[in-house]
Amino acid sequence: MQAQLIALDWGTTSLRAYKLAAGGQVLEQRSLSSGIMQLPCVPRMIAGRICTDGFELAFDEACGDWLDAQPGLAVIACGMVGSAQGWTEAAYRDTPANVASLGSALSTVRSWRGLDVHIVPGVIERSPLPNVMRGEETQVLGALQGLPAGAGDNLLIGLPGSHSKWVEVVDGCITHFDTFMTGELFAVLSEHSILGRTQQRGAPFQEAAFDRGVQVARSDEGARGPLSTLFSARTLGLTHELSPAEQTDYLSGLLIGHELAALSDVQRRRRHVADLPSILLIGNAQLCARYRRALGSCGFDRVDLAEHATERGLWHLAEAAGLMG
Amino acid sequence: MQAQLIALDWGTTSLRAYKLAAGGQVLEQRSLSSGIMQLPCVPRMIAGRICTDGFELAFDEACGDWLDAQPGLAVIACGMVGSAQGWTEAAYRDTPANVASLGSALSTVRSWRGLDVHIVPGVIERSPLPNVMRGEETQVLGALQGLPAGAGDNLLIGLPGSHSKWVEVVDGCITHFDTFMTGELFAVLSEHSILGRTQQRGAPFQEAAFDRGVQVARSDEGARGPLSTLFSARTLGLTHELSPAEQTDYLSGLLIGHELAALSDVQRRRRHVADLPSILLIGNAQLCARYRRALGSCGFDRVDLAEHATERGLWHLAEAAGLMG
Repeated sequence: MQAQLIALDWGTTSLRAYKLAAGGQVLEQRSLSSGIMQLPCVPRMIAGRICTDGFELAFDEACGDWLDAQPGLAVIACGMVGSAQGWTEAAYRDTPANVASLGSALSTVRSWRGLDVHIVPGVIERSPLPNVMRGEETQVLGALQGLPAGAGDNLLIGLPGSHSKWVEVVDGCITHFDTFMTGELFAVLSEHSILGRTQQRGAPFQEAAFDRGVQVARSDEGARGPLSTLFSARTLGLTHELSPAEQTDYLSGLLIGHELAALSDVQRRRRHVADLPSILLIGNAQLCARYRRALGSCGFDRVDLAEHATERGLWHLAEAAGLMG
Repeated sequence: MQAQLIALDWGTTSLRAYKLAAGGQVLEQRSLSSGIMQLPCVPRMIAGRICTDGFELAFDEACGDWLDAQPGLAVIACGMVGSAQGWTEAAYRDTPANVASLGSALSTVRSWRGLDVHIVPGVIERSPLPNVMRGEETQVLGALQGLPAGAGDNLLIGLPGSHSKWVEVVDGCITHFDTFMTGELFAVLSEHSILGRTQQRGAPFQEAAFDRGVQVARSDEGARGPLSTLFSARTLGLTHELSPAEQTDYLSGLLIGHELAALSDVQRRRRHVADLPSILLIGNAQLCARYRRALGSCGFDRVDLAEHATERGLWHLAEAAGLMG
């Protein structure tokens, strides 16, 4: 089958490239470590000249051979490649945002090969506190494409990660979202705080310890917030109630539990209904499994996983932008 | 005046030594960087032998000359020197704890000079989640000594720091305390997270940014907790509402605000009264000034600072233990 689009999911630490045929069918895909914070630096020939530009080099590594074989292919990219530190800045678009509004607002950068790389803008919600996403908007729009009609009502889309996003969608539009720095907090505490000193890494998943963390976050003590409960990851070790192997997953459960307890409050308040929404999770399978487990004990009982969200989103945005002619 | 006691405040990163006369009067004091995590390692002669033990070396640096001049002096120490990683472990004592109960439970280690160093135990509260302090118990008991009669009623003692403590005292007894990892979280986020990347350090105190952080923590958005509001330290920078110089103090205000919002909830619930307690702060003057500022906007309007709390506490514990003969 003939390729119609090259789609790039280009983040801070990784670059995933997809060669797509009609309907967004994936013909080939690749994963590179050339995120925008770790671009390649070894010069090479591109379009007959010596190139030292990290973005050009990464782009060439990712899909140079696909473009050699089919020089006229359209190219679209999402993620931090469109940030101020990226290849070119694709300014945030305000909520509400959908495939049509984002597809009509792509930025472009002209590559050395003479073709335009189209970059998806991030989304900003300006009040009450400003909130931004970049890359997740594409995943959300892609995940919506995979849903049966009507399934988007009373749905909340979760994207667990360093900066977890929880996105509300109305009629295919991103209308509101929240961000929780859960993943990054877990990482910096485990690597750089006193809590990490007694953690034993690399143990298999300690589900009882994880569940205990979730429960503490949801308890009366949990209402004091993570600044208070975090210390229990240390003291439960001192009192031999948590082994070093259990401390990592206890901390993970504690932080995810705080995130979901806050989310559940927010959702009940925003919707003025007793029913919590259905959840659609997008992201790393192991992390989504943790969230699914914790969601269950926080009262969210309808949880599904979305797949191929990024490449689907990029395909539909390229279609909306008319990139495939 | 004749010295009667050597009192050591021996923590993780510092060692302060006091030479005290009758009544706890300070004759001389010293500050060294020989905390238990950075002990000296250059061998030297102690009591006629080559010594390589870090605790002995630090002890000798801190007060060897005082002991040479007056070999029979009693010695007492508090802080992490009594932890499992310390010179000798002084097991935690349960709440309630006062000068009499802690003074009767000192651990001892025999130094090369042939004299006993007495070490104050930490305090543990076992439920609902275990909570521990080590060093702060001595400061709290010392601060109480400086108060007029009756001033301890409806009083809450705050010790801001890496692991802030808030201590309730009844009739001179430590009955309950909470810990918030505010200071350590601020440090790891500023040094190791995405929030630190855009912070400009070393600027003078940005009081408007600090106050804004406190207000956000106390707002409706703040009710979602720090996992959610933390991201605003980044997005307010992206939208140019906070300059790089302001981001550090905004984050400081945000975290302190979350700590105090939780504390205020806890206190109202525990005391079943509308009146918040008076506050007595112990600690670094600049940090206490930040807390005093934030406490005011969180409804705590009676705030005092305690001075010389550690040396007073060590004196009274030594007295209760009968160390001065």
